[in-house]
Amino acid sequence: MMNPTLVEHIYMLVIVTLISVLQNAFFAQKVEKEGKVQSAHSSAFERVSCANRNCMDAYATFLAAMWCAGLCLSQAPAAFAGLVYLMVRQKYFIGYLGETSQSTPGYLFGKRAIFFLILMCIVGIISFFLAHYLDSDYKKHAETITNAASALLLIP
Amino acid sequence: MMNPTLVEHIYMLVIVTLISVLQNAFFAQKVEKEGKVQSAHSSAFERVSCANRNCMDAYATFLAAMWCAGLCLSQAPAAFAGLVYLMVRQKYFIGYLGETSQSTPGYLFGKRAIFFLILMCIVGIISFFLAHYLDSDYKKHAETITNAASALLLIP
Amino acid sequence: MMNPTLVEHIYMLVIVTLISVLQNAFFAQKVEKEGKVQSAHSSAFERVSCANRNCMDAYATFLAAMWCAGLCLSQAPAAFAGLVYLMVRQKYFIGYLGETSQSTPGYLFGKRAIFFLILMCIVGIISFFLAHYLDSDYKKHAETITNAASALLLIP
Repeated sequence: MMNPTLVEHIYMLVIVTLISVLQNAFFAQKVEKEGKVQSAHSSAFERVSCANRNCMDAYATFLAAMWCAGLCLSQAPAAFAGLVYLMVRQKYFIGYLGETSQSTPGYLFGKRAIFFLILMCIVGIISFFLAHYLDSDYKKHAETITNAASALLLIP
Repeated sequence: MMNPTLVEHIYMLVIVTLISVLQNAFFAQKVEKEGKVQSAHSSAFERVSCANRNCMDAYATFLAAMWCAGLCLSQAPAAFAGLVYLMVRQKYFIGYLGETSQSTPGYLFGKRAIFFLILMCIVGIISFFLAHYLDSDYKKHAETITNAASALLLIP
Repeated sequence: MMNPTLVEHIYMLVIVTLISVLQNAFFAQKVEKEGKVQSAHSSAFERVSCANRNCMDAYATFLAAMWCAGLCLSQAPAAFAGLVYLMVRQKYFIGYLGETSQSTPGYLFGKRAIFFLILMCIVGIISFFLAHYLDSDYKKHAETITNAASALLLIP
């Protein structure tokens, strides 16, 4: 087994990843179910398939951003932003199914959560270099600010 | 280079990941080859492209589940479940090509392996919390049971 | 926060991952923008959507290969190969848009960079076993050779 001290630093990320895997399974189940009655409503299948594909296209990017942010800076805000993203994704998927195919929501979703994760990565990298070369305790300030800033994601 | 003790805890996962990357390359090669003779048999290209896309859609989910399970609990059963998944995927891909487009196999595959990996993640997280708060040696029991349970994946 | 000594071993990989996430966001933005004027030039949307999808299909594979190579052997050449891959991907994406849909570039791209990363993984795994069983310092030689070999990726 892995060093428990390592697991301690990633367990929130693992939990969010686990939830996202379960959500993916839920999406895939929907596609599978709709695909079996494909002959009946072809447009419904197309819509659910498109929604699922858009979510899957962005999934690897989301995972990469969340894990990098969590490893470089702090896991709690990264996991929180991940959760926010997953909720946005759920809403996007449901919204996609309900819409008529004329007015589908756009290709992108969860822009704010991803943007926040990218920002966390950048801050993490910069603070790593600062800590490396200047031996400052800049990192702790960055973590504190990030923890506070992650609450901003709750603003609708 | 990374700490060798860390590599020791993930080398099986790395090997399975490497095999999966090679398999992806094999799939992509098939698509590339079929795409070049696209004008001749368009339906064959569509089938191989669809099979490849379904595999790729699920790939990030599979990697996330396998690595989380391997990091949180134990790498051997996670890598074994990963191998089983890759074999199922190979069969799915080949089966997809052989089928006529009317009776394609469903969107999902390897459900049992993924389910096992998700279960491992959950057990790993729970045992981490138990070890953290109760200081029990629950983790070792969990690992032993998981190792034994992974053999169940061999049942067809 | 994570152990800083761990971050030290992965920060280059994190930077390349971050760049790739930004590039993905750029691609997605292009698709989003083209999708909004979908009615006008449908073929342009199809082309940018196809280019984006091909890039996303290969993205998880690329990330897996780069991180495995970086963790198992050495981060600098892995990150360098990752950068080369990202540049090839940028060229592929731009090239895809410019082409008429008749003569689209193939499905695959960045074969050489991926192949190099796979090779690094294999060398890393082998050298891990050699170091484990023979207690040799084979690993340092492997790293040195890899660092030198990564320059070969620059050959057009």
